[in-house]
Amino acid sequence: MSIIALGLDFGTESVRAILVDSEGCEVGSAVSSFDHGQILDALPGSTEPLPERYALQCPADWIESAAVATKDALASAGLSGDEVVGIGVDFTSCTMLPTKRDGTPLCELEEWKSRSLAWPKLWKHHGALEQADRMTTIAKERGESFLKRYGGVIGLEWFFPKMLETIEGDRDVAEAAEVWLEAGDWFVWQLVGSHCDQLVRSTCQAGYKAMWSAEEGYPSQDYFQAVHPKLAEAVANRMPGEMRSPGQVAGHLSEQMATRFGLPAGVPVSAAIIDAHAGVPGVGAAEPGTLVMVLGTSSCHMLNATKMMDIPGVAGVVEGGILPGLFGYETGQAAVGDAFAWLLKLLNRDSFDDLAKEAMKLPPGAEGVTCLDWLNGCRTPLMDGAVRGAFTGLGMQHGPAHLYLALMEASAFGVRWIVELLRHGSADRSPSGAGESGVPIDRLIATGGLPHHNRAFVEVYADVLGMPIEIHPSTQGPAVGAAVLGMVAAGPEKTPFSSIADAASAMAAVPGDQRDLIMPRPERTRAYESLYDRYRQLADAVAQQ
Amino acid sequence: MSIIALGLDFGTESVRAILVDSEGCEVGSAVSSFDHGQILDALPGSTEPLPERYALQCPADWIESAAVATKDALASAGLSGDEVVGIGVDFTSCTMLPTKRDGTPLCELEEWKSRSLAWPKLWKHHGALEQADRMTTIAKERGESFLKRYGGVIGLEWFFPKMLETIEGDRDVAEAAEVWLEAGDWFVWQLVGSHCDQLVRSTCQAGYKAMWSAEEGYPSQDYFQAVHPKLAEAVANRMPGEMRSPGQVAGHLSEQMATRFGLPAGVPVSAAIIDAHAGVPGVGAAEPGTLVMVLGTSSCHMLNATKMMDIPGVAGVVEGGILPGLFGYETGQAAVGDAFAWLLKLLNRDSFDDLAKEAMKLPPGAEGVTCLDWLNGCRTPLMDGAVRGAFTGLGMQHGPAHLYLALMEASAFGVRWIVELLRHGSADRSPSGAGESGVPIDRLIATGGLPHHNRAFVEVYADVLGMPIEIHPSTQGPAVGAAVLGMVAAGPEKTPFSSIADAASAMAAVPGDQRDLIMPRPERTRAYESLYDRYRQLADAVAQQ
Repeated sequence: MSIIALGLDFGTESVRAILVDSEGCEVGSAVSSFDHGQILDALPGSTEPLPERYALQCPADWIESAAVATKDALASAGLSGDEVVGIGVDFTSCTMLPTKRDGTPLCELEEWKSRSLAWPKLWKHHGALEQADRMTTIAKERGESFLKRYGGVIGLEWFFPKMLETIEGDRDVAEAAEVWLEAGDWFVWQLVGSHCDQLVRSTCQAGYKAMWSAEEGYPSQDYFQAVHPKLAEAVANRMPGEMRSPGQVAGHLSEQMATRFGLPAGVPVSAAIIDAHAGVPGVGAAEPGTLVMVLGTSSCHMLNATKMMDIPGVAGVVEGGILPGLFGYETGQAAVGDAFAWLLKLLNRDSFDDLAKEAMKLPPGAEGVTCLDWLNGCRTPLMDGAVRGAFTGLGMQHGPAHLYLALMEASAFGVRWIVELLRHGSADRSPSGAGESGVPIDRLIATGGLPHHNRAFVEVYADVLGMPIEIHPSTQGPAVGAAVLGMVAAGPEKTPFSSIADAASAMAAVPGDQRDLIMPRPERTRAYESLYDRYRQLADAVAQQ
Repeated sequence: MSIIALGLDFGTESVRAILVDSEGCEVGSAVSSFDHGQILDALPGSTEPLPERYALQCPADWIESAAVATKDALASAGLSGDEVVGIGVDFTSCTMLPTKRDGTPLCELEEWKSRSLAWPKLWKHHGALEQADRMTTIAKERGESFLKRYGGVIGLEWFFPKMLETIEGDRDVAEAAEVWLEAGDWFVWQLVGSHCDQLVRSTCQAGYKAMWSAEEGYPSQDYFQAVHPKLAEAVANRMPGEMRSPGQVAGHLSEQMATRFGLPAGVPVSAAIIDAHAGVPGVGAAEPGTLVMVLGTSSCHMLNATKMMDIPGVAGVVEGGILPGLFGYETGQAAVGDAFAWLLKLLNRDSFDDLAKEAMKLPPGAEGVTCLDWLNGCRTPLMDGAVRGAFTGLGMQHGPAHLYLALMEASAFGVRWIVELLRHGSADRSPSGAGESGVPIDRLIATGGLPHHNRAFVEVYADVLGMPIEIHPSTQGPAVGAAVLGMVAAGPEKTPFSSIADAASAMAAVPGDQRDLIMPRPERTRAYESLYDRYRQLADAVAQQ
């Protein structure tokens, strides 16, 4: 009988269940959409419009869709479920909710279901902008040491601003909330039981979204008190649960859930991981020095390193946040696939196919056009949601292919900026590769949907970065990563693996001689040296406005 | 019998003949294309490619097409030609050529017809870039006083750089050139005779394109000597001819040309005028303080004033250059219709109709998008052909209508910049209308092709400038202006007019109660105050790069 792990990969609209064996074969897979999808306009059963910037979800959808997807995946693989030795879960983050002590979401109670702030806030919910800004300001004023692990800024999508939003926006709901937690942790809790002392929190979510660290824990009560007394009280009394790293066992599948999912009771469940971060074990990158770029609508880059550095502009550094024993660095770009879709619509075209051919014949630099791809703001390194994009250097001779190439180059220059920042440990400009005073990067892996249908884009990345880029064949990196974590949770008695690195290597890595490598073209790389300076000048000018 | 004047309006590809009576009725009109059009690729009868940047013309085309168009116009009006009392000529400039002393163009001689630098150089011929730069540098070094009348820069399309290009590029042709002159002057010369002492030069062309002024004449021999001894020699010995203003008689139609054109011999012919400048009498604007904006592929703005000021960035100030007794100020924008055509092509659309509706519903400022329309460089006030255009402030919510509005606004902001420059007499920034230390502007007239098929564009101009804009109904402003000058040349004995102002007013002005006025909308005008600052910040940032 093969040894199989289940990965549950939660997206914004649906959940994917994937079954992977210990040799890395994906033996079954299925997707199930959430009944309520994203709740953007009005609460279920209501017509009252929600405020703009709101994005909520329905927790019952998560359980129901995960159960359906799991059963479908088992059916597609022709398996009974008995072969499944462990379950891993990755989830969008920070998606969070208030519950009672028994895990019941407030929004499922008659008393609270008409109160929007009782519902789970999806990662992209932007109702806490003011709260996030205030929390950042107060942290700066107080010289809080946690701040430098997050590039000096508390994001408006993070855990505590969202909590504070409810405390300030709906006192009754805040009073009724006995437990505040990440949706990924809630889902795992539901799988393993619903007693309050069965709740386990993921170090990944807590580390990247709730300013928690293994050494210092959450920010101090003094800090929270300075922000809002009720926030301090809630952090102290309404956030129970033990911290565990992804891959560590959070509990075992309950009888009730075993029936619902078609799996044997008692199967170990791993602590949750953030969806993007699951991509790191999901592409078999379990060693320090490999930058995993998940390229999709937006992009997330993750890097493990053996040392801790506070690098201005890097969104998060968490000890054991991605892999146990390593420091996980996270950076990102706010518009990648999104920006391409925007340009395509602007140019009134159905596809980039023709333009791509034309664009790739152009010399580096798009004959004078420079772009900033900040259509959604700039995540790393500016951490500024308000800056905006640009095309400059436009002349009569320029057409859509120039804009397309310039946009690809802007994205690549942005990654080069990030790579230099990580390598040098500061925003000081210096030539690529020189002065490795920061965190080493010696390998680049591209994954996510984009690299597979746009190889030209990855070619531009390789040329600009002057390094080979490996396109990982899996389009389901995070789902595979979740399965890897499920396998690890099953432990060395039931699996051939004694570490995440072993499991990731066997289940997700591509052997060296079979890697799909995009090589940089030296003369284009040389040309991009001075073009990168041109880009940085523009970026500096726009950022200063 | 009505009193009729003939206007000959030379464009880049064709000439228009228009017959206008003393009450302003256009009684006949015809267009004839030049056989050789623009000579861009190879000389007639040759396959040898011309250098890029070359744009030549064939002088025989000008005579032949003008004769055909005149006869067609007479036929369309059912006139014999006897009613024509005077002829006016406007011409592209600086279009110039070398001839023998009898007026024969060198390119018509067997000996020289295969030599490209023996042919007339069209206004847009850009072969003299290096010469223009050198002449500017030397003039600056020598502190030449003429330079400040031209915003500190000698244009690469002007007369002396083009002359120097031949002197340095083909010594034999330069040696054979007995006369160097503007094409407009050459054409008038051909109409009235071909003897060397019958050659009259236009103060308009000489003033705007050959650094001539009534007070100082051409630049000094010392200056030309410093540039190139052969240039000094040619200016001294190969530029015969008396200066006359447009509207003054250059001579009378010769027997030979009378036959060819179907007109009576002896009809007076006015000194030539630059095509755009003919638009000023052509819209009836014969008073100081009216800015005439000729909006086409590019734009030219002309203003008459009672005082002389050296304003940095203003391309030319010429005493009597447009109207006798007044100082003519010329400014321009390098891409207007051109820029719209570029955007339309970029956006892959057939027309702006749908976008215009959407764009005009947007608030001023295109919801954050700022544009620089420098796709062909910036004429006034930067005098910089190398700066390029931009769109900034781009976000996911922006589409083609935002870009379209932003482009219209960029053009309007550019005009506001020019208006402030003229009014304040310097590039210092100060609120619109305040501190009239420069040249007054109290009326705006838009003419040319663009205002007639894009009223939305003129609305944006009115809103941004905070002044009403009159759209002049004639789409043939320069041709009518040429006819006005022809009428004036006929003199008060044969016509009811004793001045250009009288003739322009009667033949071309729209009565006050019949004017097509676009009024500014006060709340949009207010909004544009701070948006103009945003534009100027971007312009300054890009100009400094």
